[in-house]
Amino acid sequence: MTLRFEILARDSTSQARLGRVHTPHGSFDTPAFMAVGTRGTVKGLTPDMLRQVGCRIILGNTYHLMLRPGSDVVRDLGGLQKFSGFNGPMLTDSGGFQVFSLADLRQFDRDHVVFKSHIDGATVRLGPVESMHIQHELGADIAMAFDDCPPADCPPERLAQAMDRTIRWAAICREEHEKRDSEKLQSLFGIVQGGTNFNERRRCAEALLAMDFDGYALGGLAVGEGHERMITTIDQVAPLLPEKRPRYLMGVGYPVDILEAVKRGVDMFDCVLPTRNGRNAVAFTSAGPIRLRNSQYIRDPGPLDASCDCVCCRQFSRGYLRHLFTVGEMLGPTLISLHNLRFFQRWMLDIQQAIRDNNCSMLVAPGAAKC
Amino acid sequence: MTLRFEILARDSTSQARLGRVHTPHGSFDTPAFMAVGTRGTVKGLTPDMLRQVGCRIILGNTYHLMLRPGSDVVRDLGGLQKFSGFNGPMLTDSGGFQVFSLADLRQFDRDHVVFKSHIDGATVRLGPVESMHIQHELGADIAMAFDDCPPADCPPERLAQAMDRTIRWAAICREEHEKRDSEKLQSLFGIVQGGTNFNERRRCAEALLAMDFDGYALGGLAVGEGHERMITTIDQVAPLLPEKRPRYLMGVGYPVDILEAVKRGVDMFDCVLPTRNGRNAVAFTSAGPIRLRNSQYIRDPGPLDASCDCVCCRQFSRGYLRHLFTVGEMLGPTLISLHNLRFFQRWMLDIQQAIRDNNCSMLVAPGAAKC
Repeated sequence: MTLRFEILARDSTSQARLGRVHTPHGSFDTPAFMAVGTRGTVKGLTPDMLRQVGCRIILGNTYHLMLRPGSDVVRDLGGLQKFSGFNGPMLTDSGGFQVFSLADLRQFDRDHVVFKSHIDGATVRLGPVESMHIQHELGADIAMAFDDCPPADCPPERLAQAMDRTIRWAAICREEHEKRDSEKLQSLFGIVQGGTNFNERRRCAEALLAMDFDGYALGGLAVGEGHERMITTIDQVAPLLPEKRPRYLMGVGYPVDILEAVKRGVDMFDCVLPTRNGRNAVAFTSAGPIRLRNSQYIRDPGPLDASCDCVCCRQFSRGYLRHLFTVGEMLGPTLISLHNLRFFQRWMLDIQQAIRDNNCSMLVAPGAAKC
Repeated sequence: MTLRFEILARDSTSQARLGRVHTPHGSFDTPAFMAVGTRGTVKGLTPDMLRQVGCRIILGNTYHLMLRPGSDVVRDLGGLQKFSGFNGPMLTDSGGFQVFSLADLRQFDRDHVVFKSHIDGATVRLGPVESMHIQHELGADIAMAFDDCPPADCPPERLAQAMDRTIRWAAICREEHEKRDSEKLQSLFGIVQGGTNFNERRRCAEALLAMDFDGYALGGLAVGEGHERMITTIDQVAPLLPEKRPRYLMGVGYPVDILEAVKRGVDMFDCVLPTRNGRNAVAFTSAGPIRLRNSQYIRDPGPLDASCDCVCCRQFSRGYLRHLFTVGEMLGPTLISLHNLRFFQRWMLDIQQAIRDNNCSMLVAPGAAKC
């Protein structure tokens, strides 16, 4: 195992823990929020900006990078960290989720998904062996096992089939990873699937634990099942996962979702919300969401969020930010994405401090309304 | 006059001079290249990035800003410097050139151009009084007199008519400026027009000199007349302009054009080349232009320009930069614009040093081929 996970403090009012993950490209503190850098860049932000707003680990999407520029190109250019200029810890997802959400004409054979590229319609086969090969070439510090992520509302037979596949594929990934990672530069996380069915979740978790992954993710949540059922599932599944390994809730989420998951022992998160909302002129603030296209901001000289320390809030007025979106200037998406990422990173710092202070159960998520 | 222009050194091998312009928002050294911030932002770059690459003065476009967000909004948000977050010296053009190049259905009445907005088709009347009002509201350190900028190939009658208007309008601008600028926060430059006709240029220059502007621009060049005729015109007209006022060649240009104009006594320049080419994946480098979309750069691990000190050249490979353009990521235009601006600013520093060294006539423009 190349990844080292220290638990530095525990909150006595919940299952929350403060930790530090060490990787070959540096360390990051947990609970951690990973910005999403789909195609080797967090849209519109330089690596310097990412560091300025406190991003310590970035996620890249295997599906997008395998199609363009191709994992062999990323490998030839020094791996994802050097390629992107971030040069800090990075994680790649397995490609599974994007295949199910973006690609056309999916078919399964035993150990592959066959799909048409959303870019040029080319037929692509992706399975656990290919995913491990591609992620090894991308060279992120943390790779994810290739899983079958079924829709939230799928019938029980489809769910059971997905669990069978996810478990079988996890074993293949474990073996492939072991073969490829002779230099011990990458870690591999398993992904527990099972929808909101506890029996399937438990079956999946138990099978994956026996394979001894470096960390464990909860997949297939925040896909439409609703906040309550998501929290219930985390409540049930998190205790099944080993104490000494990082736990990662994939694709989540709003500040309140993150807090509830942290209180149940989750350590890592990723979500496109700060950047996607930022590109759409919606800012997270301590007073709730701000939709900058609203005409009320035309002459507003105030900062986006007076309590924020980011460059966007220190240098620009709401009126100027609105103008950038009105005329379609790309600096608008850049600045609001930057602010939103800072908002999320400050929230993670608040959560980390609450754990140190044994105060997690008293913490209230900022900007209560969802954007 | 609020603008102070010091001449610090002269090149003995040419008419080039090294100077410093002081404005209410700070000073800048000449020969100076102004980045173009059309709509209150240099596309894709933060003010911090502009300062990092050495931009000391930015140009804003009156035509665009009057339409959106409106000069009253910019005024209410503190003026263009505060609005844009640049907080350094800024200059606004008069709106004339854009009216002639962008707007539809132009008609003249005695002291107005009547046109339809390229945004919503609304009818707008713009003349010297309106231009002074708008530029006063925008509040840049340097405003430009409203001129009639005829096409390069126009018949003699149209040219003569344009000179009559330019001279009459300059007088109106001078008077309006005097009335409005009671706090002496803005300077006003006159614009010498006349195409490539020396008699018209001289007539215009003499009329404008009698009005005593804070600086003098050469307008109506680099509009299709070709390099040789442009240089000939500068050769003829620059000596007519007062020694002790800054001379500004509008809309120019390539490094070699800038050098030739500097050697003829020009101090200020602006051009969209570095940013427009940057957005189109064309980089200026010491070895000539690089078109990053070319497939030869797919696996190129080298920097864009090994001799450049900008963030783009220090942190990223050509292969990565090409990838950004291939997938349409906005970081691509941002990074190449940043590099190209640094390339131009380094060229201005080289020119300034050559003046100090009495060596201007030996200087050779970098990256000889035009992009």
